Amino acid sequence: MSRIQRLKEGRVREIIELVKAEGDRAVKFLTKKFDGIDIEQTEINKEVSGSSSNQVNRQLKDAIAAAVINIERFHVAQLPKGIEVDTVPGVRCKLVYRPLKRVGLYVPGGTAPLISTALMLGIPARVAGCSELIVCTPPPVNPAILYVSSLLNARVFRIGGAQAIAAMAFGTQTIPQVNKIFGPGNAYVTEAKMQIAAAGIPIDIPAGPSELLVISDETAIPKFIAADLLSQAEHCPDSQVVLISTSTAIINETLNEINIQMEKLSRKLTAQKSLGNSFAIKVDSIPRVIEISNTYAPEHLIMAIENPNEFENEIVNAGSVFLGNFTPESVGDYASGTNHTLPTSGFAKSWSGVSLNSFLKTITLQELTPSGLYNISSTVTTLANAERLDAHANAISIRLNYINNRSKNEIL
Amino acid sequence: MSRIQRLKEGRVREIIELVKAEGDRAVKFLTKKFDGIDIEQTEINKEVSGSSSNQVNRQLKDAIAAAVINIERFHVAQLPKGIEVDTVPGVRCKLVYRPLKRVGLYVPGGTAPLISTALMLGIPARVAGCSELIVCTPPPVNPAILYVSSLLNARVFRIGGAQAIAAMAFGTQTIPQVNKIFGPGNAYVTEAKMQIAAAGIPIDIPAGPSELLVISDETAIPKFIAADLLSQAEHCPDSQVVLISTSTAIINETLNEINIQMEKLSRKLTAQKSLGNSFAIKVDSIPRVIEISNTYAPEHLIMAIENPNEFENEIVNAGSVFLGNFTPESVGDYASGTNHTLPTSGFAKSWSGVSLNSFLKTITLQELTPSGLYNISSTVTTLANAERLDAHANAISIRLNYINNRSKNEIL
Repeated sequence: MSRIQRLKEGRVREIIELVKAEGDRAVKFLTKKFDGIDIEQTEINKEVSGSSSNQVNRQLKDAIAAAVINIERFHVAQLPKGIEVDTVPGVRCKLVYRPLKRVGLYVPGGTAPLISTALMLGIPARVAGCSELIVCTPPPVNPAILYVSSLLNARVFRIGGAQAIAAMAFGTQTIPQVNKIFGPGNAYVTEAKMQIAAAGIPIDIPAGPSELLVISDETAIPKFIAADLLSQAEHCPDSQVVLISTSTAIINETLNEINIQMEKLSRKLTAQKSLGNSFAIKVDSIPRVIEISNTYAPEHLIMAIENPNEFENEIVNAGSVFLGNFTPESVGDYASGTNHTLPTSGFAKSWSGVSLNSFLKTITLQELTPSGLYNISSTVTTLANAERLDAHANAISIRLNYINNRSKNEIL
Repeated sequence: MSRIQRLKEGRVREIIELVKAEGDRAVKFLTKKFDGIDIEQTEINKEVSGSSSNQVNRQLKDAIAAAVINIERFHVAQLPKGIEVDTVPGVRCKLVYRPLKRVGLYVPGGTAPLISTALMLGIPARVAGCSELIVCTPPPVNPAILYVSSLLNARVFRIGGAQAIAAMAFGTQTIPQVNKIFGPGNAYVTEAKMQIAAAGIPIDIPAGPSELLVISDETAIPKFIAADLLSQAEHCPDSQVVLISTSTAIINETLNEINIQMEKLSRKLTAQKSLGNSFAIKVDSIPRVIEISNTYAPEHLIMAIENPNEFENEIVNAGSVFLGNFTPESVGDYASGTNHTLPTSGFAKSWSGVSLNSFLKTITLQELTPSGLYNISSTVTTLANAERLDAHANAISIRLNYINNRSKNEIL
């Protein structure tokens, strides 16, 4: 572990301990210290949230409404059905879904209001049936975030950083403890999420710098690719964008286009920095491209190739995939309907992006008739004996005796 | 944090660092130190595993075969279908499932071979389509575990403890790095799982001492309840069993039955100790019983009441539920088909038990036609501008310009 990592880990550990011990007092102290803002109340009251609607223009409201419909549609389609199976006659097994009751949604602050983060976390939570949504976001809180939160009927707390994660994980006098914590954040927020995960509080996914891989053949359109790579590069200075192509001409034209398009960007400096972490590779065949892509396990994968559908089944490690020339990554960031909370840094090998399922849990049930019990009794007893657990076997035999005493015919 | 917890945390951290740094050398050293066994090779070769079949008797093989069928049936029924939705005309979104490639299954050692643990983790992994199963279990390895592992076509490593978790999480010269780690274990194994979870390696569930809650009305049969409570109590000294009943008579008779049945148990001392952590409560009504149950969030819940189906939808926090008088918990431990790897210690409020889904991940895909892009373009552009991400908006406008230049009619 690097010394910087160790330092960050220690600081976050202190923040978490402090919030656990002192609750709101610690949260307010840390908000003053890190955000430079004195907050009297941690929660923003509903009237303030409600009146934020006046500060959001019509065009933005319409865009939010349109995005809500698409995101909702895609997540409603994911509502799972429970299952019910008789594994053996008389042995009925079920699996049912229950929403998480209270979920914590972290919405980062910073230069711009991350409206889309609030939508991508809040809509599936509502579709899943979570009964309480807790939004934490650092002050000052943008009216657009308040507006979206009021659409979601979420409670909003004006706190950010590791202290917000700690507060939601363990609860304070005013901030309720949640069942799971979602959302991106800076290095301290991420470290806090990993530390609370180690205490058994579930998190959505480990977060890291965002990334995009574009794979292309000679049918790709370089200025589209350039625009997509830049849209990822402008996120933050440690984003990474990668282009893999079977065509040297496409690579060269794309690099040229990047230089042209970058000039006009307001976040040119950020994009430039993240291009420093980035690269382009020429390879010989699409199968080899797919192989590299699966090894890299990109958060976002654009398949700018002639027949992307032919190869989509071979993509095994990726967060979200964008097929063809008319599917820029930015549609997934806002409004196609898929979730934009995705595994980065190779985590797509082991983790899924946020989906409806992230807000649900399962319970299994079983119900045996006397004859069902009879049917599996010797299996259970033999295995219990092999594991030397007598009482497990007794729980079966005591019931079999009862059945025998009552005359089998009457009960079975 | 208690000093004992801090000590354990520090020791496990050292073990993990050592295994990361030294690989097999560390694993062998720690196996000698903790298990007192010199291992030349970490892996048990396939011939040895194969020949273990001779050391497992026919009756046990038959019981294993019967359990496999039921567990397989219940987990096959969970195979999810992907979804495909046009959220807007021309905007197709999909969600597809992919198996985790390589999974690590920890099977504890100790007084008896935990055959059922190997089945409950290995079968869903195979049904999900995971291509590599890695079993770690401390030496000496029981033939029954080798037999089950060979049925599962799993590779078996004769290592246990925190060092096994570290080895699977980060890989060594001989032990491959896995995508997710499953399985119960002692306090050091659990601590190691939580620490590697903090490094972003997914785990099944945080584990704690096992527990059973029995809820009953006057229709329950006290000797059945007593047998069930004891079957949980014999697991380990820190297990907890709880009885909640609307009937004082049922409580008294059950306590009496416990004393009678306990006498004959080979694990009487263990059961006695865990009964020390246990209690019975008399309450007035079934709704109140359900309320307490949901607050307690038991790993196992037996509903020994007249009409359990009437109340099953009200159970929101539980691992697995056993309905009626003829459904002892031990059927779920071995052979009803449900998974026995379940959230303990109140974690059922936030976590699910192991299911087929635990071995799968999801990827989303989207594919837009030019007219689909046109349909959501203003939504994406407005939101991107509100978040001040120019390049995100450019990725849309550059395509719209292209479409316009090519004459809309030709492309849309």
